[in-house]
Amino acid sequence: MTSPKSFGSDNHAGVHPAVLQAIVDANSGDAVSYGADAWTERVADELREAFGADDAFLVLNGSGANVLGLGLLLRRHEAVICAESAHINTDECGAPERLLGTKLLPVPSPDGKITPEHIAAQLSGRGDDHRSQPGVVAVTQSTELGTCYTLAELRKITDFCHASDLRVYLDGARLANAASSLDCSLAELAECADALSFGGTKNGAMGAEALIVMQAGLAEEVPYLRKQQTQLTSKMRFVAAQFGALLQDGLWRSNAAHANAMARRLAEGAGAVDGVELVYPVQANAVFARLQARHIAALQEDWFFHVWDETESVVRWMTAFDTTEADVDAFVTSIRKTARP
Amino acid sequence: MTSPKSFGSDNHAGVHPAVLQAIVDANSGDAVSYGADAWTERVADELREAFGADDAFLVLNGSGANVLGLGLLLRRHEAVICAESAHINTDECGAPERLLGTKLLPVPSPDGKITPEHIAAQLSGRGDDHRSQPGVVAVTQSTELGTCYTLAELRKITDFCHASDLRVYLDGARLANAASSLDCSLAELAECADALSFGGTKNGAMGAEALIVMQAGLAEEVPYLRKQQTQLTSKMRFVAAQFGALLQDGLWRSNAAHANAMARRLAEGAGAVDGVELVYPVQANAVFARLQARHIAALQEDWFFHVWDETESVVRWMTAFDTTEADVDAFVTSIRKTARP
Amino acid sequence: MTSPKSFGSDNHAGVHPAVLQAIVDANSGDAVSYGADAWTERVADELREAFGADDAFLVLNGSGANVLGLGLLLRRHEAVICAESAHINTDECGAPERLLGTKLLPVPSPDGKITPEHIAAQLSGRGDDHRSQPGVVAVTQSTELGTCYTLAELRKITDFCHASDLRVYLDGARLANAASSLDCSLAELAECADALSFGGTKNGAMGAEALIVMQAGLAEEVPYLRKQQTQLTSKMRFVAAQFGALLQDGLWRSNAAHANAMARRLAEGAGAVDGVELVYPVQANAVFARLQARHIAALQEDWFFHVWDETESVVRWMTAFDTTEADVDAFVTSIRKTARP
Amino acid sequence: MTSPKSFGSDNHAGVHPAVLQAIVDANSGDAVSYGADAWTERVADELREAFGADDAFLVLNGSGANVLGLGLLLRRHEAVICAESAHINTDECGAPERLLGTKLLPVPSPDGKITPEHIAAQLSGRGDDHRSQPGVVAVTQSTELGTCYTLAELRKITDFCHASDLRVYLDGARLANAASSLDCSLAELAECADALSFGGTKNGAMGAEALIVMQAGLAEEVPYLRKQQTQLTSKMRFVAAQFGALLQDGLWRSNAAHANAMARRLAEGAGAVDGVELVYPVQANAVFARLQARHIAALQEDWFFHVWDETESVVRWMTAFDTTEADVDAFVTSIRKTARP
Repeated sequence: MTSPKSFGSDNHAGVHPAVLQAIVDANSGDAVSYGADAWTERVADELREAFGADDAFLVLNGSGANVLGLGLLLRRHEAVICAESAHINTDECGAPERLLGTKLLPVPSPDGKITPEHIAAQLSGRGDDHRSQPGVVAVTQSTELGTCYTLAELRKITDFCHASDLRVYLDGARLANAASSLDCSLAELAECADALSFGGTKNGAMGAEALIVMQAGLAEEVPYLRKQQTQLTSKMRFVAAQFGALLQDGLWRSNAAHANAMARRLAEGAGAVDGVELVYPVQANAVFARLQARHIAALQEDWFFHVWDETESVVRWMTAFDTTEADVDAFVTSIRKTARP
Repeated sequence: MTSPKSFGSDNHAGVHPAVLQAIVDANSGDAVSYGADAWTERVADELREAFGADDAFLVLNGSGANVLGLGLLLRRHEAVICAESAHINTDECGAPERLLGTKLLPVPSPDGKITPEHIAAQLSGRGDDHRSQPGVVAVTQSTELGTCYTLAELRKITDFCHASDLRVYLDGARLANAASSLDCSLAELAECADALSFGGTKNGAMGAEALIVMQAGLAEEVPYLRKQQTQLTSKMRFVAAQFGALLQDGLWRSNAAHANAMARRLAEGAGAVDGVELVYPVQANAVFARLQARHIAALQEDWFFHVWDETESVVRWMTAFDTTEADVDAFVTSIRKTARP
Repeated sequence: MTSPKSFGSDNHAGVHPAVLQAIVDANSGDAVSYGADAWTERVADELREAFGADDAFLVLNGSGANVLGLGLLLRRHEAVICAESAHINTDECGAPERLLGTKLLPVPSPDGKITPEHIAAQLSGRGDDHRSQPGVVAVTQSTELGTCYTLAELRKITDFCHASDLRVYLDGARLANAASSLDCSLAELAECADALSFGGTKNGAMGAEALIVMQAGLAEEVPYLRKQQTQLTSKMRFVAAQFGALLQDGLWRSNAAHANAMARRLAEGAGAVDGVELVYPVQANAVFARLQARHIAALQEDWFFHVWDETESVVRWMTAFDTTEADVDAFVTSIRKTARP
Repeated sequence: MTSPKSFGSDNHAGVHPAVLQAIVDANSGDAVSYGADAWTERVADELREAFGADDAFLVLNGSGANVLGLGLLLRRHEAVICAESAHINTDECGAPERLLGTKLLPVPSPDGKITPEHIAAQLSGRGDDHRSQPGVVAVTQSTELGTCYTLAELRKITDFCHASDLRVYLDGARLANAASSLDCSLAELAECADALSFGGTKNGAMGAEALIVMQAGLAEEVPYLRKQQTQLTSKMRFVAAQFGALLQDGLWRSNAAHANAMARRLAEGAGAVDGVELVYPVQANAVFARLQARHIAALQEDWFFHVWDETESVVRWMTAFDTTEADVDAFVTSIRKTARP
């Protein structure tokens, strides 16, 4: 693998060495399965404390966390309001509809963030039994477009939702990046939600996500729903060990801070190139840029990244915990050479 | 972890060193995510060849494989005939019903195996639109009761099913144990099914299962269904690497052969003790025994295992790839001391 | 239609003249649709009063009522304990599994009735997240085998269930027959359940069932779930009018009393014939009898009825509101002629 | 009921006298239940012939027909492309998502009609297992906005869909109005679809819809799915009788023609009033008009109709088989008086 660093996704990266070591260390003899082991108990404690949460549960991937969390908050006749660009709407092959039977009510949002006004506009059919009733608002933090809600924005959403008998689910596949970007605690983010996910995988884990339950009285059902939704693994200690490593000495935060810094460095470098237009504020570890189609094609000969919107000629470049300054600088140099008008 | 070897489950064991090393080795730079990496492609090839399969797909756990495989074979109005003791019926918290909307038609089977007669008895309502129509027969090999279908028994089921417009799904969470027990190839087992799972986790992996598709024309839908059912992981190479290690030099078979041998050793040792009655033939890596309730309780003070049937006073003892002869002998000694009438 | 009276089912009968007249009368100009009409409001009031219910909702058929009622009482990870012979288990083509995603836990019951002992035996996996958790007990009154729970039996079930955190659903497709048989009020039956259906169709209606909600706090969701489950009809007044007629001057009770009396007359007549064995107590409007297979075949040349169990050579004969004494006597005469040993 | 004619919905009307008479006539003695009766067989024949269909099935309401038809055409990982204003998207309380687990991909359409361009724009994620895969295109004819696709428009959609491996479902709740408006046969409309519904209820029936299956090989599953989705009624002859009446001597067409004519009369009358703006072409039995909010409120004091879009100040006026010229003229007079600027 001597190809250059991928800017395709933060999940193209491997596993952080400390996480890998924790997995290796956990391989010490027998342990009771399905999460009744010491690693899982310790990590659940740590997560509860870090988030000020009622409870915390480990799962296997982000879609699994999202379906579990949404299902926990939804009644059978209820729908989910989310941004059109939300992962649950565009990238889970219809899992919420299939596994929960819920309807999504996507709202167009130019920067991936939704507002109380977006939400309010979806409430006109309340009380009409012909309409799927909005029950949950799902926000992603940081968003799929590399932007972050400020804490004030999140609190406005939560206040509006709770005043409107709506629950808030937060897709935190990149919550670490948001916490770093906003320089806030996980608990400050979590108190804006009734349930949320906390992503480990894009932050240096091998495959580990957590569902954090904030609202009291909900956690009791989670173990059954997690099993039923095939998100319970037998050798759970190896998932727990990953979070153990990320939580130790704030590794999750330094990983995220580094990835964010690399994205800013890339944005600064690429943004200064004529013919490259940054399309969203760079507030996490993603850079969205508009280039000419032929420049994109040329750049893709040497570098791996995704075209986000072909008709708009917009690409997405993502950085990870292991992206180096040299990687970014080499990429920017290529961009500069290629995008010359 | 200086406690004695667990006989509670084969998933109490850790990860085989070769599997762990393969995971470590796979952590080499970037790789495209969601299974488009070189490890996954190689392992899929190897699985296709080993099973003589149309295609093979990696998933995260046994319930995930079962739901994916059953769903692939079922039409919306169809039901699944299975043994009452089948994992899909008793141990997946209703995942097939919830995620597939299917009805299970469990048939009582004293040894965990079903027969064409069992199946035939479920077909009386065919063509009656008030009845859920049997569409799939699910067998487990080796069974949840530690028994194995012979190849002849499996073929009789398959012949009957195919002659009756029924498809066959084989839950192979412990397929390796069966292949070793029967001294047959994976392909010989697979040709009795339209789709089957191949379990890695109980065989020394960390968390890796495969769905093997035998019937042509079905594989095309699997990637979508796998994603929709939250069984697609982003850093797939680390799942693939596990199977890579198990498939190399027949590690899967030697692991299974060892576990089976330890179960036989345990059965011989414990079966010779007065007051211990073996309740099923020991044909894989599980031993079911009847002891007096107070003997069970006394034994559980020092050893970890599950009571299988409290009213019948039956326990389940499982062996794993890493159970040693010394573990078994020490356990048998304890049993002998405890079960003294 | 000069063929003899069908003993095949109580739904082979047409519509009671008073019900038909009520439908005709309801066809008077415009009415707001989807149940916001005067007929529906009046009938809902009458049903609430008759049952001492929190609320009452009209639906289109028995399966619709059952799915709606069960769904109302179930959490997503919960299962339904019911008799193996329950309509929801055998005659709804898997609707509860498909539409609710729930698991059924059928218990063998020789007379179609279940007991607290049956229920208790299903609770051993409580708290184990691998097991679908029993949440609802479903009883049918009168049962699919023509038997009736006594009020004392029902209360024992309800007491046991409520003490065990289980809710009770009562399938009352033939509740009228039970109320008549037990000479009790609808409210006395209803207070044994958290939700129940009240069947009109088998009692002389054209197609009208009601879901009666007893437990407070549940009714709010029903309108949405009813619409979502396609059980809301636009011209609801014509469903309401049917119940209006059945509720007027106790027509539902006299219809049921008559049907029950005809079943008893048939049971007495047929039971006195050598070679005819009654297999269940006749406590509603169904008679189950064992005859020789060739006698069944001979009888079916002139009369319409269903073989219930081919291997056991058991038939089901049902009576309806419009079965006459002459119909029964003619049928008994035929039976006597045919079953001569 | 001496209140003026409702312009609220075509389902505020009662039952056409001929339909009611057919129901009364069908109440003649016993009939086998669940659709095995002579009325149902005859009507199914007539429907098959009228539509040139492979098969035809009776159901209870429009949502039931839509869910049944869509489910028949969808594979588990597939989504439905439809107009944002489609009934399945806005007025079925999420039934397709809940009962089928499918995702809807609604496209904005100013006049309720979608085009091959709309459809093509939804196909960019094909082959990407993260995306729900478009499988069915659902069109409504006549649309929820009172417009009609021309036959040429429908054929273009069908040709595009079939060339793109998409199936076409047509929601024909008001198909009669479309056939009358286009002066075409039911078969000409049906040949543009793989399955479609044919609405009786809004056309003078009490509660009767049909699912028409055009594509060969699909019909076999319908009886099971219909039962499973609670759309099978026991006394089916009374549903069949309704269609029998509508099909006799083209009653369905004359009912629709009359309703359409009344809508045109209303559109001409109201459209000529200053301060009233017609917002869609009037091509069936609905008139959408923009009035000042205070005029709407004033008009609603005497007349029943729905505000369609409060922010846009748009109302919907519907006509039915029993709307008279006098009703329309009186309404127009009121509009004229009220809407005076």
